[in-house]
Amino acid sequence: MRVLGIDPGLQTTGFGLVDVDGPHLHYVASGTIKTREAALGDLPGRLKIIYEGVREVVERYQPQVASVEIVFVNVNPQSTLLLGQARGAALAGLVSCALPVNEYTALQMKKAIVGHGLARKEQIQEMVARLLRLPSLPGKDAADALGLAICHAHAARTFEAVGKAGGRPGRRTHGQMKGGRSY
Amino acid sequence: MRVLGIDPGLQTTGFGLVDVDGPHLHYVASGTIKTREAALGDLPGRLKIIYEGVREVVERYQPQVASVEIVFVNVNPQSTLLLGQARGAALAGLVSCALPVNEYTALQMKKAIVGHGLARKEQIQEMVARLLRLPSLPGKDAADALGLAICHAHAARTFEAVGKAGGRPGRRTHGQMKGGRSY
Repeated sequence: MRVLGIDPGLQTTGFGLVDVDGPHLHYVASGTIKTREAALGDLPGRLKIIYEGVREVVERYQPQVASVEIVFVNVNPQSTLLLGQARGAALAGLVSCALPVNEYTALQMKKAIVGHGLARKEQIQEMVARLLRLPSLPGKDAADALGLAICHAHAARTFEAVGKAGGRPGRRTHGQMKGGRSY
Repeated sequence: MRVLGIDPGLQTTGFGLVDVDGPHLHYVASGTIKTREAALGDLPGRLKIIYEGVREVVERYQPQVASVEIVFVNVNPQSTLLLGQARGAALAGLVSCALPVNEYTALQMKKAIVGHGLARKEQIQEMVARLLRLPSLPGKDAADALGLAICHAHAARTFEAVGKAGGRPGRRTHGQMKGGRSY
């Protein structure tokens, strides 16, 4: 199973791909989609870069499932609105490729990678590098995205173990991890 | 010029198409994209319906330009986040069809249609029906979308009159109306 992790953001969207082979994890690729080339006020242009960037990653690496960070409300409501739109464009890119989407909070990802929810960015980078036997640390956004892919790999394995695995294509698969959010 | 107005929402996204022929406006079509068929907690599924619905409308009616309502932060931050994602998916649908996107606030739309920003929903419906010579009142979401299309028609005409018209494809066209929002 190839998992695509996505950490959505209006400036930078991280992506990371991991192959899951039973208990083994293999790094495939990671990187960021940056919207800098669009003018600062050009929101549709930025969303287009995110949408097309996500589709390009899916077409190139052909993942079977996506794992996307659940974003939270920001102290600044305007930022919340912009982040929501960035996430909407990223999800549109995924579902337009008929990819099943799973959603995890940053807390769930941190618990899966570092063991607790208070992990700093650097700890995520270090643990992701260790789990995937990378020769150097991935960037912060890419590390979060790889962390989301690993988080889903763990959750899917747990579900398989209890005999109720299997995401339905094109639908959100609920409750892979304790505390999963619903809308 | 055929203008597609879009009033984005997570439950219901209104759309309305108007042909602009100099000072004349002609009704083409209007309706809503409803996400009810997706499960309540299935956010990716809902965004998929919005994204695909918008693309379907563009493919069927072949508009040259889109006019999308600028959404605002809600009292409920979680609703803001969900609305943002719905708008992001709608915009992804538009830009994936290479449609230039113009953005107006509800206030700008109301001023363009009714003459002041305090207009009630029913007044928008009545004025839209009158301006487009409709035999009956359009639904509220469709009326807002038609209002956005008319609002852009007025703004484009004003710009043409002062000799600086013309939206650049794939970019947000700024400042068509006084008080236009930038991010």
